[in-house]
Amino acid sequence: MVSPPHPLASLSIDETNQARDVVIDAHPGASIYFRHASLLEPPKAELTAFLDAEHSGNLTASTPQPARLAEVKYDAIERGSKVPVYQEAWVDIGQKKVVQHELIDTEFHASLTFPEFDTFVEVCEKSPLFQQKIKEFKLPPGFEVVIEPWPYGGLDSADENRRFFQGLIFAADASKGNKDTNFYPYPLPIIPIMDWANQEIVRIDELATGGNNDPLDAKTHKEGVLDHCASGEYVPELLKGGLRKDLKALNVTQPDGPSFAVTDDRLIEWQKWRFRVSFNAREGAVIHDVHYDGRSVLYRLAFSEMSVPYADPRPPFHRKQAFDFGDGGLGHCCNNLQLGCDCLGVIKYLDGVIVGADGTAQKAPNVICIHEQDNGINWKHTNWRTGRAVVTRRRELVVQYIITLANYEYVFAFKFDQAGGICVEARATGIVSVVNIDPGKTADWGNVVSPGALAQNHQHAFCLRIDPAIDGHKNTVSYEESLPMKISPESNPNGNRYEVRKTPVTHSSGLDLDPLAGRTFKVQNLDHLNPISGKPVGYKILPPATQKLLAAEGSIQYNRALFAQHHVWVTKYRDHELYAAGRYTLQSRKEQGGLADMCARGEGVRQEDVVVWSVFTLTHNPRVEDWPVMPVEISQVNIVPADFFTCNPSIDVPSSKNDASLLANGCGDCGEEGKSKL
Amino acid sequence: MVSPPHPLASLSIDETNQARDVVIDAHPGASIYFRHASLLEPPKAELTAFLDAEHSGNLTASTPQPARLAEVKYDAIERGSKVPVYQEAWVDIGQKKVVQHELIDTEFHASLTFPEFDTFVEVCEKSPLFQQKIKEFKLPPGFEVVIEPWPYGGLDSADENRRFFQGLIFAADASKGNKDTNFYPYPLPIIPIMDWANQEIVRIDELATGGNNDPLDAKTHKEGVLDHCASGEYVPELLKGGLRKDLKALNVTQPDGPSFAVTDDRLIEWQKWRFRVSFNAREGAVIHDVHYDGRSVLYRLAFSEMSVPYADPRPPFHRKQAFDFGDGGLGHCCNNLQLGCDCLGVIKYLDGVIVGADGTAQKAPNVICIHEQDNGINWKHTNWRTGRAVVTRRRELVVQYIITLANYEYVFAFKFDQAGGICVEARATGIVSVVNIDPGKTADWGNVVSPGALAQNHQHAFCLRIDPAIDGHKNTVSYEESLPMKISPESNPNGNRYEVRKTPVTHSSGLDLDPLAGRTFKVQNLDHLNPISGKPVGYKILPPATQKLLAAEGSIQYNRALFAQHHVWVTKYRDHELYAAGRYTLQSRKEQGGLADMCARGEGVRQEDVVVWSVFTLTHNPRVEDWPVMPVEISQVNIVPADFFTCNPSIDVPSSKNDASLLANGCGDCGEEGKSKL
Repeated sequence: MVSPPHPLASLSIDETNQARDVVIDAHPGASIYFRHASLLEPPKAELTAFLDAEHSGNLTASTPQPARLAEVKYDAIERGSKVPVYQEAWVDIGQKKVVQHELIDTEFHASLTFPEFDTFVEVCEKSPLFQQKIKEFKLPPGFEVVIEPWPYGGLDSADENRRFFQGLIFAADASKGNKDTNFYPYPLPIIPIMDWANQEIVRIDELATGGNNDPLDAKTHKEGVLDHCASGEYVPELLKGGLRKDLKALNVTQPDGPSFAVTDDRLIEWQKWRFRVSFNAREGAVIHDVHYDGRSVLYRLAFSEMSVPYADPRPPFHRKQAFDFGDGGLGHCCNNLQLGCDCLGVIKYLDGVIVGADGTAQKAPNVICIHEQDNGINWKHTNWRTGRAVVTRRRELVVQYIITLANYEYVFAFKFDQAGGICVEARATGIVSVVNIDPGKTADWGNVVSPGALAQNHQHAFCLRIDPAIDGHKNTVSYEESLPMKISPESNPNGNRYEVRKTPVTHSSGLDLDPLAGRTFKVQNLDHLNPISGKPVGYKILPPATQKLLAAEGSIQYNRALFAQHHVWVTKYRDHELYAAGRYTLQSRKEQGGLADMCARGEGVRQEDVVVWSVFTLTHNPRVEDWPVMPVEISQVNIVPADFFTCNPSIDVPSSKNDASLLANGCGDCGEEGKSKL
Repeated sequence: MVSPPHPLASLSIDETNQARDVVIDAHPGASIYFRHASLLEPPKAELTAFLDAEHSGNLTASTPQPARLAEVKYDAIERGSKVPVYQEAWVDIGQKKVVQHELIDTEFHASLTFPEFDTFVEVCEKSPLFQQKIKEFKLPPGFEVVIEPWPYGGLDSADENRRFFQGLIFAADASKGNKDTNFYPYPLPIIPIMDWANQEIVRIDELATGGNNDPLDAKTHKEGVLDHCASGEYVPELLKGGLRKDLKALNVTQPDGPSFAVTDDRLIEWQKWRFRVSFNAREGAVIHDVHYDGRSVLYRLAFSEMSVPYADPRPPFHRKQAFDFGDGGLGHCCNNLQLGCDCLGVIKYLDGVIVGADGTAQKAPNVICIHEQDNGINWKHTNWRTGRAVVTRRRELVVQYIITLANYEYVFAFKFDQAGGICVEARATGIVSVVNIDPGKTADWGNVVSPGALAQNHQHAFCLRIDPAIDGHKNTVSYEESLPMKISPESNPNGNRYEVRKTPVTHSSGLDLDPLAGRTFKVQNLDHLNPISGKPVGYKILPPATQKLLAAEGSIQYNRALFAQHHVWVTKYRDHELYAAGRYTLQSRKEQGGLADMCARGEGVRQEDVVVWSVFTLTHNPRVEDWPVMPVEISQVNIVPADFFTCNPSIDVPSSKNDASLLANGCGDCGEEGKSKL
């Protein structure tokens, strides 16, 4: 008998196809357009019972196995109808039946799919309206049009509630004979809009190309609109100056293999850490059931949402606001990672499963990579009496995935260290979004990064969802501040004391950072005291001190992303409540079912099953140096033990000398002298 | 003819000894106690003339060579006197004469030396007063006393202006037969005080060992004061549980050698960067004359000061406040770095020169190391039309030095990247300072990290001195904020716009971060406009958003470290003005000649020769996990181009696949399968 998949294993190709079949069977004669199929994770109560048995070594054939459920999202045009109806079903794979089914209110829009984008491009290309507009621009010889589909953004009014797509339009210099010539330096000032229901271009928005001294709606440029633009290549064979030639190889080798182990059902064990990783179409990589040295730390860890609003005040750019998880499903955008390119060393790749429009499972190869890296010194001490130094290095295990969203990419990583810490990292890279600007003009809402190309100011509001389980599921969040104290003869006679003030979070709420007060957030288990310090065992959550979303209060950008109005949110756990901006973000006018709504329940969160949401927002006013592809901007949330352990958990890391390190000789050209070991 | 040393080359052993001889000759018959001898860097005007000639390729034998000057600090007891007089001389090495000499006012104290510490330990050990106190404690059998010398801290009153030393006292369990047994878990509650002039123990401060509910001055414990303390080892052979055994080797290899070159006079060239590194007794490593691709970026970069005040309100801990640069000269504390321990890969080590009490030059071996490292992805873009990904890695050049200050260590690094950025990093590690606490007690001003050992809350206020030269020496500092704007029909019709507000710094001043306003500091050259954006060329300075020093306003801790009351200071350059807390910090009661005084000059700093000082303060309320040696806490200041270049300076970094990377097989044990390349 084949044992069932682990309850946290992502749906297999077979399971996904079975779910498809169940949905098709449930709609006889209907035409079905599939959008999403991924594991619906078991309710926490069920899963926890299973995991407890697993961790205590009591897993047997009779241990109750949570049902394998697929969450399937699709449009169905029933027999005799012409209207696609968006709906969602939970399919029990074992029972081969739909166990829950929901017609989604038309107020909400299903997340978009790449096949929809493909359709948009086809429709746009064929549109006479669009062709006419392009003609008016008189493109330079050899240039061809590139249509880049985008979500439409927040609807200006509830009345226009249709499903739209829009496209940013560029031109590529085909005369270079290279399909990878960069087209972004050549932005055309139009945005075609498609109505999905009719699959036709219903409107073309004309974009202003003026600057600071022009009215916002000035359409000041038309013919020869690309004549002042300039090439900006990044593929090596097109680089004008060629590549730098003085970079020598740096290899990471692990002659004895990696220190980590990954089982077929994606249990990862490394340096006392034990966790599982899954992949789904909405969130990409998800970390589950994190233990260190046999003790529970987190139940679940994943990025939940990201919103990228643009600050160009000229309509229609107020609608330029992507929700990269909710709008299209981030898992659909994951890169196929390549050995020797996206990380170094000994690497384990994991595949994902997504579905096409026909519901058939597709392997998404190498969407997650796992490897080890060295991150400098971890701890060191030299005994001044004897001169003896003991130094250990900081080895990290990296679980990484990378997404491409049209022009832009994000490198996400969960980095586990040997001292019980987890660093969650987001690197922003790719090509900044630009619009055409008239020659010689500048604009306060962006920066001219290439002739004729204005990179608009924007923000990236990330939300990381942390479901802690510090020695169990009942946890308490509090924040601690370090505050000056007045001089007082009794308590602070010489003024050197400062107060460490603790404030527990009693009810679900949104909270802010206060870096100048040293405010740090802790998740503690008040029922478990550290035997050394006498304080509750806990972990600190250290988000970067960033701005909030800057759009004006009451604006649609603001209302759609209420989650970005606080740095740290604490909510009471509910099954399947995973999305900071709500389940439906595409074309939303306000956040519904997101963090603000969750908190409005006003639930008590003291020693309850709590969820912590860490929001950090990169304000990106582009530099010329961000062009044509920007060097990474790195943001990190650190999750580190605070009186969880009884000593430095990495004190037992060997301090062995690395024998592969070599001396360089003086001239920097490592000859025979440099190659001999000291 | 031997060419003269480069004007920025640190003093050689020979030059240092020549300076010693000149000083000795200047005081015939005197007894001289040397404290410091390092290069006095040339005045900027002279050095700049030389460097300009160097950079333009016009360096000839007739180029004026700035004089080689040694700054020598020493006490002299003149013939017939018994009183040591502290003084400082500038010695012209070439002319073999003192060109400037200053008797230092007795209000100020010379920085301490390790020989003074040795003397303190000897005096203390012999002191009957001290011996008697130790006897009273009834140490456990086999324990022996360890005396750890400390600076005395800020004097409580100007009247007691003598030169003191104090010692923290611990006991080591000699019965273990290992000289590297950790003695810090066994703190004894006394602090002996030595008067340097008489070289005798003049007082023993008795320390309170109570907790929250005791009066601050309660001396509640005496006999058997170590009986409730417990061992806390970190050297591997003493670790109770042994070392973890599942960490496999990770090697960094560079088969073609490093990409950097270091000349004998310490010119470093790497990936379009060109700079010099020097070493001096006060600051450790200093970076000079930084150019990228032939353009000037910085004139000088070095850590200037660090103050570590402790927040235990019980006297005498208000005096526990080290100035790790000013009190003893950080260069005296630099580790002898070891191949394969302090960094990986192909490494170049540099030696330093310091002096002993007799003024003779001593080689300080391997005080600086230089190596390359990989730091993940630098930029990536995938063309969604073709699927082609171009990804480059982020190679960094690291100039690192590490210091040990009794219990504690800092790892300092200047990390240059390929995109024109410099990351200045401080890692705090080592052993947190503890005092004895009675069994079962806790205290709000610290955390019990080991039985009987209270780690006191404290801060580390670092100051990084950045002397910019953005396309020349006349630069302007401003800060930029991204601020919400109200909805307005003309300028912000849909509320998505935010304002980027620029504020120039017109006069020398101390300024603060405002992370929620996204405040960033820029150094620009207003006379050079970026040809793409039209904005002045510049660099952003991005300090971490930290607290300020928390000691109460008006307290001695506060007054001594005024520099830590602002995050960013802008001053007008003056020759030899290098120290944030002033030249003399030992036993100071207030900062003199430091940042507050420099700013008080009220000099105009718009398109002037400006200096930017970045202050960041790590508030460290210790965790149990910090014991017995703490995992690094990492702080970083990033210095990145902002419209300095005309595109991403790393766009020409090769995106070559790394051939040494391997696939792991599924089980994590890299067998033959894992070793075969994909």
